Amino acid sequence: MTPLRVAMIGHGFMGAAHSVGWRQAPRMFELPRDVEMTVVVGRNAETVADAAARWGWVEAATDWRQVIARDDIDIVDIVTPGDSHAEIAIAALEAGKHVLCEKPLANSVAEAEAMAQAARRAAEGGVRSMVGFTYRRVPAVTLMRDLVAEGAVGRVQQVRAAYRQDWLVDPEMPLAWRLQKEHAGSGALGDIGAHIIDMTQFVTGLGIDEVTGTLDTIVKQRPLPEGTRSPSLSKREGAVGAAMGEVTVDDVALFSGRLANGALASFEATRFATGRKNALSIEVSGDRGSLVFDLEDLNSLGFYDRTAPDIRQGFTKILVTEASHPYVAAWWPAGHMLGYEHGFSHQVVDLVTAIADGTDPHPSFDEGLSVQQVLDAVEGSSRNGSTWTRVGAAVAVGGARR
Amino acid sequence: MTPLRVAMIGHGFMGAAHSVGWRQAPRMFELPRDVEMTVVVGRNAETVADAAARWGWVEAATDWRQVIARDDIDIVDIVTPGDSHAEIAIAALEAGKHVLCEKPLANSVAEAEAMAQAARRAAEGGVRSMVGFTYRRVPAVTLMRDLVAEGAVGRVQQVRAAYRQDWLVDPEMPLAWRLQKEHAGSGALGDIGAHIIDMTQFVTGLGIDEVTGTLDTIVKQRPLPEGTRSPSLSKREGAVGAAMGEVTVDDVALFSGRLANGALASFEATRFATGRKNALSIEVSGDRGSLVFDLEDLNSLGFYDRTAPDIRQGFTKILVTEASHPYVAAWWPAGHMLGYEHGFSHQVVDLVTAIADGTDPHPSFDEGLSVQQVLDAVEGSSRNGSTWTRVGAAVAVGGARR
Amino acid sequence: MTPLRVAMIGHGFMGAAHSVGWRQAPRMFELPRDVEMTVVVGRNAETVADAAARWGWVEAATDWRQVIARDDIDIVDIVTPGDSHAEIAIAALEAGKHVLCEKPLANSVAEAEAMAQAARRAAEGGVRSMVGFTYRRVPAVTLMRDLVAEGAVGRVQQVRAAYRQDWLVDPEMPLAWRLQKEHAGSGALGDIGAHIIDMTQFVTGLGIDEVTGTLDTIVKQRPLPEGTRSPSLSKREGAVGAAMGEVTVDDVALFSGRLANGALASFEATRFATGRKNALSIEVSGDRGSLVFDLEDLNSLGFYDRTAPDIRQGFTKILVTEASHPYVAAWWPAGHMLGYEHGFSHQVVDLVTAIADGTDPHPSFDEGLSVQQVLDAVEGSSRNGSTWTRVGAAVAVGGARR
Amino acid sequence: MTPLRVAMIGHGFMGAAHSVGWRQAPRMFELPRDVEMTVVVGRNAETVADAAARWGWVEAATDWRQVIARDDIDIVDIVTPGDSHAEIAIAALEAGKHVLCEKPLANSVAEAEAMAQAARRAAEGGVRSMVGFTYRRVPAVTLMRDLVAEGAVGRVQQVRAAYRQDWLVDPEMPLAWRLQKEHAGSGALGDIGAHIIDMTQFVTGLGIDEVTGTLDTIVKQRPLPEGTRSPSLSKREGAVGAAMGEVTVDDVALFSGRLANGALASFEATRFATGRKNALSIEVSGDRGSLVFDLEDLNSLGFYDRTAPDIRQGFTKILVTEASHPYVAAWWPAGHMLGYEHGFSHQVVDLVTAIADGTDPHPSFDEGLSVQQVLDAVEGSSRNGSTWTRVGAAVAVGGARR
Repeated sequence: MTPLRVAMIGHGFMGAAHSVGWRQAPRMFELPRDVEMTVVVGRNAETVADAAARWGWVEAATDWRQVIARDDIDIVDIVTPGDSHAEIAIAALEAGKHVLCEKPLANSVAEAEAMAQAARRAAEGGVRSMVGFTYRRVPAVTLMRDLVAEGAVGRVQQVRAAYRQDWLVDPEMPLAWRLQKEHAGSGALGDIGAHIIDMTQFVTGLGIDEVTGTLDTIVKQRPLPEGTRSPSLSKREGAVGAAMGEVTVDDVALFSGRLANGALASFEATRFATGRKNALSIEVSGDRGSLVFDLEDLNSLGFYDRTAPDIRQGFTKILVTEASHPYVAAWWPAGHMLGYEHGFSHQVVDLVTAIADGTDPHPSFDEGLSVQQVLDAVEGSSRNGSTWTRVGAAVAVGGARR
Repeated sequence: MTPLRVAMIGHGFMGAAHSVGWRQAPRMFELPRDVEMTVVVGRNAETVADAAARWGWVEAATDWRQVIARDDIDIVDIVTPGDSHAEIAIAALEAGKHVLCEKPLANSVAEAEAMAQAARRAAEGGVRSMVGFTYRRVPAVTLMRDLVAEGAVGRVQQVRAAYRQDWLVDPEMPLAWRLQKEHAGSGALGDIGAHIIDMTQFVTGLGIDEVTGTLDTIVKQRPLPEGTRSPSLSKREGAVGAAMGEVTVDDVALFSGRLANGALASFEATRFATGRKNALSIEVSGDRGSLVFDLEDLNSLGFYDRTAPDIRQGFTKILVTEASHPYVAAWWPAGHMLGYEHGFSHQVVDLVTAIADGTDPHPSFDEGLSVQQVLDAVEGSSRNGSTWTRVGAAVAVGGARR
Repeated sequence: MTPLRVAMIGHGFMGAAHSVGWRQAPRMFELPRDVEMTVVVGRNAETVADAAARWGWVEAATDWRQVIARDDIDIVDIVTPGDSHAEIAIAALEAGKHVLCEKPLANSVAEAEAMAQAARRAAEGGVRSMVGFTYRRVPAVTLMRDLVAEGAVGRVQQVRAAYRQDWLVDPEMPLAWRLQKEHAGSGALGDIGAHIIDMTQFVTGLGIDEVTGTLDTIVKQRPLPEGTRSPSLSKREGAVGAAMGEVTVDDVALFSGRLANGALASFEATRFATGRKNALSIEVSGDRGSLVFDLEDLNSLGFYDRTAPDIRQGFTKILVTEASHPYVAAWWPAGHMLGYEHGFSHQVVDLVTAIADGTDPHPSFDEGLSVQQVLDAVEGSSRNGSTWTRVGAAVAVGGARR
Repeated sequence: MTPLRVAMIGHGFMGAAHSVGWRQAPRMFELPRDVEMTVVVGRNAETVADAAARWGWVEAATDWRQVIARDDIDIVDIVTPGDSHAEIAIAALEAGKHVLCEKPLANSVAEAEAMAQAARRAAEGGVRSMVGFTYRRVPAVTLMRDLVAEGAVGRVQQVRAAYRQDWLVDPEMPLAWRLQKEHAGSGALGDIGAHIIDMTQFVTGLGIDEVTGTLDTIVKQRPLPEGTRSPSLSKREGAVGAAMGEVTVDDVALFSGRLANGALASFEATRFATGRKNALSIEVSGDRGSLVFDLEDLNSLGFYDRTAPDIRQGFTKILVTEASHPYVAAWWPAGHMLGYEHGFSHQVVDLVTAIADGTDPHPSFDEGLSVQQVLDAVEGSSRNGSTWTRVGAAVAVGGARR
């Protein structure tokens, strides 16, 4: 059987990570279909050719429309900034290509809705779509979801989630595209807040119905980079000019949500938590136990079992490196750590398996849309004095809630 | 010189803790005045006599007014539930007694204002007053304040605080006085939320100007205890009857505040964080560094120094057990842990020193009032759809904030 | 009933700690007999009077023989350096006093044997004796013993223990009595190594049959303190003169032992582990699970249960602050930390209870003797090229062991 | 320029890991020479063909001698069990191939000596050789070495190292080749003890001059696997028959070493540390600071700086994920974790760079030999009652050492 041929649109930081996934998954897992890293697409012919050579893509191209039009492409993997997701994804779906789209799905609810609609339509023809919330596929996170689903924490009564970084504490950090609303859609909220929204919905199985939130921009002006927009978080690249530009996105987002079962969840997304590099943490508390995960310690999962004998209760640090844990058997013996990029391989495994099996992989574009709706409601609430705001409508609920 | 003679009003869990402070401080520290544990006061003659005998108070009494009227009493230490603080404290101050009052200062802003006014008036005559936010005197917390004050974190840009317990996860936990609004004033908010409000203001030196918040009661009915109100958190005591009563306070409080310098702070106070027993945590992030403290690991303080050489940066776990750390020299050699109750000794040390020196100890009743005002504004915001609400006025700010 | 009257001989660092135990235990626990802190004894009239006043002893005295001869003394608590333990303890036992003797029991096996013999003789007349290995009474350590005893780890197959401090890393630290063989008996080995030997035997219930070990002195000369020997670990006290003296004890002791059931145990006692202040750690591994304790995190105990479902296995951090845990119910609610000195209260509780009940408390002088024998065998092995050496005989076993 | 063509001999667990290194390094790093995964060699034609297809080797072969004889092969990577290392490596070196040989270098000192001699001879002709102690190339370990080398801990005064696993606690674990002396050379000592010996010598820059040690086999008989020897640590593979076989290697190795500067180091290698999966830990203490590393938390390094201001001292947890840390810039932004297999890529980077630059990479075969000599001395000491034994001579030193 011919391999699934992949076109990757974009080649920034996420392009490197997705490339590892495409490269490693077929080597470490027994995939039902082989894959070929056929073509990487970028606007600059030279840099995309470099990327292709470096990361092992057979070809490089500069026109994503031509690539999508090719008969020999099966999967389109979109890793561009959010402002181009909708156009590319919809075109690819309409061309009958399976689509993997980086998160957040889009820069606005309207775009995300159009994408979700396109995905639903395409699904009728057997075309698969998936949003790149790869953290779902960190083995400890998948295990967390499994344990919640099998009742290990009982009824979910509370969630506490945060995603904290500190790369903007330095006021000299230049005004990269991630700090510009027209490219990034939003700041900490859409970039990292989106992850904790999705993770909360994923591990609890509960949607977020309404929110109250506050956005804030701490450093309001930053030096403009000399040249084009920077694709990376890195401090190292890009000369910085004397000119200053306006930061048009949030640095910090504090919000709370009401889950479908009535439980409250607190969220914090910030790029100003000095010393926190990539500190996504989530704790789910229920009436039988609780689970806690921290991305800076991603090979372990904390589990508190309230049903254990009283004198033995405590948080168990499960080292999620056993062959019986999700995805792990394909890698190394117990106690051998996995890293950040392994989730990208697992994403490939699940997408390819879904295509081969004719099933829909998660997270669907509808799930991506729901995250977008929560982001939108948080922005709406923030604009409106932080009043509780219904997700979907993005209308303030107003009045006393309890 | 005659010792300072102390009367303690109340003898529940806090009475035990305060008694340790009065008993230990003179033995471990060189106090400028000796102290005598003169009399403990309670409503039931038998149980207060037991408490006196057990904890080493010379006398027991049942009428706090008579005790306050005694000429030989110098200090009145109030450890009753919050609904009686105002009456006792004001009477004691007017009788010229120095007053130590457990937190929160009162059950309402009105009471707290009256108390603060009484304290200010009494101060003119050299009478000292102090609120029992003992966590300020955990050595690591005092050190945290000192480090912020000397600029170790630079400009405070963000605070993240939480106080999480789980003793209400069990729906059979009876309806103790702490769950009744008329006795406790509020629930998680006033009991443990008050601590993180005070600690934030204390360590940053910044007041909280406005808030947005949400209160929630997860288990709305609980079994009534057979007999009188229970003074303790403990599961063990008190038979539980068949009758159910209404929980009239919050189980969970999620809120955010705007500090005087414009920085945002997030707060979470909950009694439903399964597996978290007494998990007060606070992280202060600035443009030069950050500090993090966790009461379940109370002998250490985390410090991240952004000004350190790049490759050596990280959170330093300072074991706050060195003789050079606050209060520690009086205790044990380095590495020998202190516990929960040591703060009560430090509180005695500072109060007695202030009395001897003729200075005002902290936290003042005005500081206690400010906490009460924040609590009040959080309740107001919660009633009003979580809109931003100014502290002091307890009036919704409304409209878009940014 | 009259209280038990206590005489404490010695008043250094350990005197302060024992005083807390005598002061606090009757206030926090319901003791079967009351206790009175009757007299503290020291060689210098002035300093012992200070200590008595400070710590709350009724009287001060300078002649321990006279004190032991008093009819009104029930308990003699010995906290002098090890070179005087034997003489005082034997005299006290012969005078019919119950004896609590600080660890290590003596400076030599011969002394310890004489003491153990005296204790056995005295026991026939209902006189109780106990060695001050207080760490046995840290709640987490007692729980560790209980869990091993009830089979939670199955058959003990391995033990890993260490006690690491760093107060000698500074070469200017003066030549205190603890560094002089004639006073201290040995160095890191006898001071802190003794604790991990006792703790291993206590928690596993298994004696150490033979050992191989190495002692080393890293800094061989140190400045002599000006004046008499220093009773404290502290850096702060005592002027240091220009003269240097020879360090006559070990700085580091590395040894391994064979337990009675054949399992190996590794030990490390050092005062040169830079950054480790009081880091006693022990891990007991069995065929059903393991337990791990760290004195720098003394309120918790790690437990790994190999019989748990595979995907949920991990080290559970039991916060040993529940009312159901040993000794804890007398103190604070769950999650409220205990400190170093609480073990001294628990020691008093158990000694007083044993006296009242007419039973023998642990650790007995025989247990103290067994620790002394292990120390002696380690010294013998070290002198003899580290060959395996039988405990008790202190004779090298020699030849190939396996 | 033509790529460097690689032949890998062997294809067990280590083959998978080395394959990741060969596959990833050229994609993530800018190598001075490209590499080609030319051929993998195994005894069974079918399984080696599977391995080649799976891992991306161009060809499969069954005769390593033929492969070594090929002109187009530049590098021979040996990942077979230790009993065949010497023969293959010497043949490859004599054929002028650069050699990467998995650790431990050999199963005996004699073999290792012959290999080291062959490597020295080959080096004269520009042929490079390297031993696969990949843990040297975990970024935190490389940083540890760098910090020691630049004086961050001052004079090394003590080392504490351990490598603890628990996969043999289950007595039903079959008698794999790693438990048979004729294939594995030794047990825990040679397999994991070798790592901590090498790491100690690497990070301190000090050789181990003499040792005292004890080996022990806890479970002496195990079920024989049905079929051939198992290449993996895994529980999952291989039916287990009824027949039992003798375990001929050690389960536990406890040993101490004397470093070249006189400092003591303690070592523990065990497969019976229940709950410890891959717990390599090492702590280096010096007179200016200390460093501590734990492979189960491999993205961080602990650093204690005794020269920091007194009140701020503590262990700093350096998250070794900054672009300024060794190897990290090629991977992900700060805070994005690396895993076990990244060291294999770094190994490839350094080997290829050395070949391109015409320099000798580390660890050399001489370094591998020195590890073998330490292992041999430990075995000698264990056979001889654990007496101190000189490394190199493997002769008991005997007599009193101090």
